[in-house]
Amino acid sequence: MKKLFAEFFGTYWLVFGGCGSAIFAAGIPDLGIGFAGVALAFGLTVLTMAYAVGHISGGHFNPAVSFGLWAGGRFPAKDLIPYIIAQCVGAIAAAGTLFTIASGKAGFAIDNTKAGAFASNGFGAFSPDGYSLQSAFIAEFVLTLFFLLVILGATDKFANGKFAGVAIGLALTLIHLISIPITNTSVNPARSLSQAVFTGGEPLSQVWLFWVAPILGAIVAGFIYKTLLQNHDEA
Amino acid sequence: MKKLFAEFFGTYWLVFGGCGSAIFAAGIPDLGIGFAGVALAFGLTVLTMAYAVGHISGGHFNPAVSFGLWAGGRFPAKDLIPYIIAQCVGAIAAAGTLFTIASGKAGFAIDNTKAGAFASNGFGAFSPDGYSLQSAFIAEFVLTLFFLLVILGATDKFANGKFAGVAIGLALTLIHLISIPITNTSVNPARSLSQAVFTGGEPLSQVWLFWVAPILGAIVAGFIYKTLLQNHDEA
Amino acid sequence: MKKLFAEFFGTYWLVFGGCGSAIFAAGIPDLGIGFAGVALAFGLTVLTMAYAVGHISGGHFNPAVSFGLWAGGRFPAKDLIPYIIAQCVGAIAAAGTLFTIASGKAGFAIDNTKAGAFASNGFGAFSPDGYSLQSAFIAEFVLTLFFLLVILGATDKFANGKFAGVAIGLALTLIHLISIPITNTSVNPARSLSQAVFTGGEPLSQVWLFWVAPILGAIVAGFIYKTLLQNHDEA
Amino acid sequence: MKKLFAEFFGTYWLVFGGCGSAIFAAGIPDLGIGFAGVALAFGLTVLTMAYAVGHISGGHFNPAVSFGLWAGGRFPAKDLIPYIIAQCVGAIAAAGTLFTIASGKAGFAIDNTKAGAFASNGFGAFSPDGYSLQSAFIAEFVLTLFFLLVILGATDKFANGKFAGVAIGLALTLIHLISIPITNTSVNPARSLSQAVFTGGEPLSQVWLFWVAPILGAIVAGFIYKTLLQNHDEA
Repeated sequence: MKKLFAEFFGTYWLVFGGCGSAIFAAGIPDLGIGFAGVALAFGLTVLTMAYAVGHISGGHFNPAVSFGLWAGGRFPAKDLIPYIIAQCVGAIAAAGTLFTIASGKAGFAIDNTKAGAFASNGFGAFSPDGYSLQSAFIAEFVLTLFFLLVILGATDKFANGKFAGVAIGLALTLIHLISIPITNTSVNPARSLSQAVFTGGEPLSQVWLFWVAPILGAIVAGFIYKTLLQNHDEA
Repeated sequence: MKKLFAEFFGTYWLVFGGCGSAIFAAGIPDLGIGFAGVALAFGLTVLTMAYAVGHISGGHFNPAVSFGLWAGGRFPAKDLIPYIIAQCVGAIAAAGTLFTIASGKAGFAIDNTKAGAFASNGFGAFSPDGYSLQSAFIAEFVLTLFFLLVILGATDKFANGKFAGVAIGLALTLIHLISIPITNTSVNPARSLSQAVFTGGEPLSQVWLFWVAPILGAIVAGFIYKTLLQNHDEA
Repeated sequence: MKKLFAEFFGTYWLVFGGCGSAIFAAGIPDLGIGFAGVALAFGLTVLTMAYAVGHISGGHFNPAVSFGLWAGGRFPAKDLIPYIIAQCVGAIAAAGTLFTIASGKAGFAIDNTKAGAFASNGFGAFSPDGYSLQSAFIAEFVLTLFFLLVILGATDKFANGKFAGVAIGLALTLIHLISIPITNTSVNPARSLSQAVFTGGEPLSQVWLFWVAPILGAIVAGFIYKTLLQNHDEA
Repeated sequence: MKKLFAEFFGTYWLVFGGCGSAIFAAGIPDLGIGFAGVALAFGLTVLTMAYAVGHISGGHFNPAVSFGLWAGGRFPAKDLIPYIIAQCVGAIAAAGTLFTIASGKAGFAIDNTKAGAFASNGFGAFSPDGYSLQSAFIAEFVLTLFFLLVILGATDKFANGKFAGVAIGLALTLIHLISIPITNTSVNPARSLSQAVFTGGEPLSQVWLFWVAPILGAIVAGFIYKTLLQNHDEA
């Protein structure tokens, strides 16, 4: 049960911090943090929570990560569903808090005809810089695949594992530095769902891609790591 | 006594570095560091002092942190008042130094009718981007709550504790990346008090919120951590 | 063989992340990540992969690094060619993926008469800020030399080696912070080759400099480290 | 002798990277790295070299640091002069390389009537944002004082010393985030001297302040640390 609370709080923080920085601070004229600041924020949510509750739950905060660790032989199938539920509930609770805070500014409204509204993910007309469905799919697939390679490698028993939280958190920053213009960056189905629930409309219709592509990429990463990279010798 | 000196110097550095970067460097046209630079500066004050004097005083530099550690059962009640006095004296001394340096630029004056003047915190008309009292309260409450979850988790005896300074410092960066537009970001009553003392006027009248919301959030975090997350087994 | 896969995936990630952030995200109006964001992205590709697969292959991801480690007596000559092939194949595969994703935006085309097109390196008319061949050569030589000093020093048996991945990754960030305007920053022949293959034209004709200068700088660093800095005592 | 080479290369890198990023990359329109990028660059020069050659020379790269460590009882007086000479020679060699590279851009010339020319330090009319001599002196004094508190604390035998390179490097980043607009940030007499040698004119006449204030601040820090913070018990 402690594990599920850890996943709940960790995913809440990921969405509150990552999507919150995008909603409140990215676009302030002159002083705003821009895409680079949002990228840093997303990464720091994971870095900070990995050191805070990673020792409790492993620190997934992301259904694709749970699937990838399962595919890599590091996470039991029976825990997949409870983890993913805790993650999605945490993400949606965070999005609700963001909505409440955002509503305290005069004139706030979510315009769900605009790409990236309320930090939602999208492709085609809902890609921040106009990338197609195919580009979005490849980007989310490749980025999640490498995210999981970093996670599986950095937590390998032969690795310098104390730094895993730094490497994994900053991998998420890197991923956002590359791909916010393409899909507003997901690599995390819970984070996509939570924003789409509040956005509705077309962003909600597109949320399937941000479940399928990241989870597929994560599972492929699990098999690549086991087959091509992992050292199977006993230490 | 060494502990109180450590808290004095640490909180001085937090205010001098964090508020100083906001006052001197955030808004320089074209080259200024913006909100992201200020966020980084605040975080680095804590990261650097955590490794410098954390081994002396624990490295709180913030009355809300002291309250949260007390609520989490990690800090004795009898040390609360001395720590908080050392923190507030350090913060006010730093604000005084900032005022002296700032006065060396022709035309310097604090305009306390403007949101964020002299790096002060505020809500409503004194929120940098116009957020209401209610939004400000929720934001400060939630952000301090999670700040303390990171602190309590990263310093847990089961955690990878050597990285606590990195995780805690960068948590403060993350918090600023999200919320400078909302309240100019406090999560630290000493930092709010020191700037309000020099600003006076409405920002000083609003300083109560930046004591109540962070301390309340910190105390709730202490109870959440103890109840829902902490492993009470002996190692 | 695991080593070559590790170099393949690591160099793929370096090019996909570093050049990808430049292609997709650097120049977005107002919100783009700029040169500083690209610098961070390049560094984080190495930092993340160093912790992920550094324990497998040593984590070179760069022919100049392999040459420099050989010159410093840390890498066997017989592994040079296989490593460099794996690196170049990984880099070109990443550039191909970037090309595919970029093609999913309406109006995409590589204009190889423009400095920095498709994140290519160049000098003279192909230097982003108009630096001469001589300046470009000195910059690439000096920067790769110091990159290798950091690598050789941080992985020295007398050094605090667990932090090598942080120091080496952030050294690459630093290198980009200095020199994107000069050559669009290479210090990595594989990264230059992969982009030039897709750009063709003059950037491809200039790619020789980004093999000669970095490899020369790296080899000189190997000799400097061995001769002037290394402690030859047994521990 | 290895120690002096380490200080030479370390200080070369500090000036080449820190001042180089300011000269080449800070002011590029739209994409430039700005003051925040320069701040990051300065910090990363120290972070990277601390892990690379810190185990050889202690990693000062700065006459004020050598003085402060001497005042704190951590560095023998007899090594002060050789270290400072190695630092200044390294800094001037780096400035010479920067001058050579910069000369490869058409129209390059140092305009020594302009604040911050060739990354020089200054006050009054030579302060980037117009701060007085008194403000400049206080800022350099206080910032170097705290820089040394971080150095002395993070390398204390009771501290979590493996992170000292991270804390000290990022302290230099923080210092630049605060004070580039005030003095263009020195806290390092060697870095000020090297740029002033190439600038000449008024910036050279002002270089005294960037020797006196940082060294004074560093010495005061040494006494503060020994007297108020250091634990004199044997472990």
